[in-house]
Amino acid sequence: MKFSIYDLSSGTFIPVLQSLSRILDKAVQQAAEKNIDAAMLPHARLAPDMYPLVKQVQIACDTAKDAVGRLTGQKPPRFEDNEQTLDDLKGRVVKTIDYLQGVNSTDFEGAETRAILFPLIENLVFDSNAFEYLRDWALPHFYFHVVTAYDILRHDGVEIGKRDYLSHTGIHIHPTS
Amino acid sequence: MKFSIYDLSSGTFIPVLQSLSRILDKAVQQAAEKNIDAAMLPHARLAPDMYPLVKQVQIACDTAKDAVGRLTGQKPPRFEDNEQTLDDLKGRVVKTIDYLQGVNSTDFEGAETRAILFPLIENLVFDSNAFEYLRDWALPHFYFHVVTAYDILRHDGVEIGKRDYLSHTGIHIHPTS
Repeated sequence: MKFSIYDLSSGTFIPVLQSLSRILDKAVQQAAEKNIDAAMLPHARLAPDMYPLVKQVQIACDTAKDAVGRLTGQKPPRFEDNEQTLDDLKGRVVKTIDYLQGVNSTDFEGAETRAILFPLIENLVFDSNAFEYLRDWALPHFYFHVVTAYDILRHDGVEIGKRDYLSHTGIHIHPTS
Repeated sequence: MKFSIYDLSSGTFIPVLQSLSRILDKAVQQAAEKNIDAAMLPHARLAPDMYPLVKQVQIACDTAKDAVGRLTGQKPPRFEDNEQTLDDLKGRVVKTIDYLQGVNSTDFEGAETRAILFPLIENLVFDSNAFEYLRDWALPHFYFHVVTAYDILRHDGVEIGKRDYLSHTGIHIHPTS
């Protein structure tokens, strides 16, 4: 078995974002049924100086799209950060999945040997090979924002569980035969 | 550039757990200096039916150790879930890092073709190849519990930031030359 940069990047981002999309559906549905303020939820946060839900979802999406852009040498689409509602956030996730699904495994040809270098704050740069970029930067950032979005929703009363976060993992689960 | 199951598993778990260890050090230090109840912190949670900090750290550690055990075909050590204090939790993380550091890249020989199959609840089993197990089960679970531990500490007033969560990523960051 071999695995590629494509398998590790798009193969993580797309299914996890699909799970996030379903989690946002649940939040919309439960806000309508339960005593949850749907208008407040996008602006909820876990600490005064942490980003609210809206920003967590935006950064999760952008981390995935920027990673695939850098790994393929393509320029990913730019999305305005203008989401206000849970439905808007769901739309952001869907737009991101659409972009990622449009990038083929063949677009990743040469990714294994691509050097990744991009500016950070001040005069610092991030500088590594493609695999290290994915393992040490893109994946931990991505999971940070997906999980914190989940944690904000849980903290504010949305009933979701590990099975929602990992709904895409069901393909590997079956009854004992 | 090639990357292996070893690079993706131990190469993720060890540095992220080292960052988590430093985060717990900061929590101990700040609890002593600021108005934070250090005895309460291990039992803090983000929702009444979510696990508290102590359990988040235990599961993060166990996800890493069980993954390396399954991927190498070794039996990892069993740790008692008896942590009560922040120092105890730090000890759990350090013990886990010690185990992971003792497993060499050569122990992973054949991991690429190893079938991973283990029981879940009821009569269900998880069943995939090693890479899919790592990508779709071990890594998302691991990050879930590390990030939720971070989010609990942030929510309860510990001053930490992305640089603490990603302190291990510094090796790829340098000034523009």
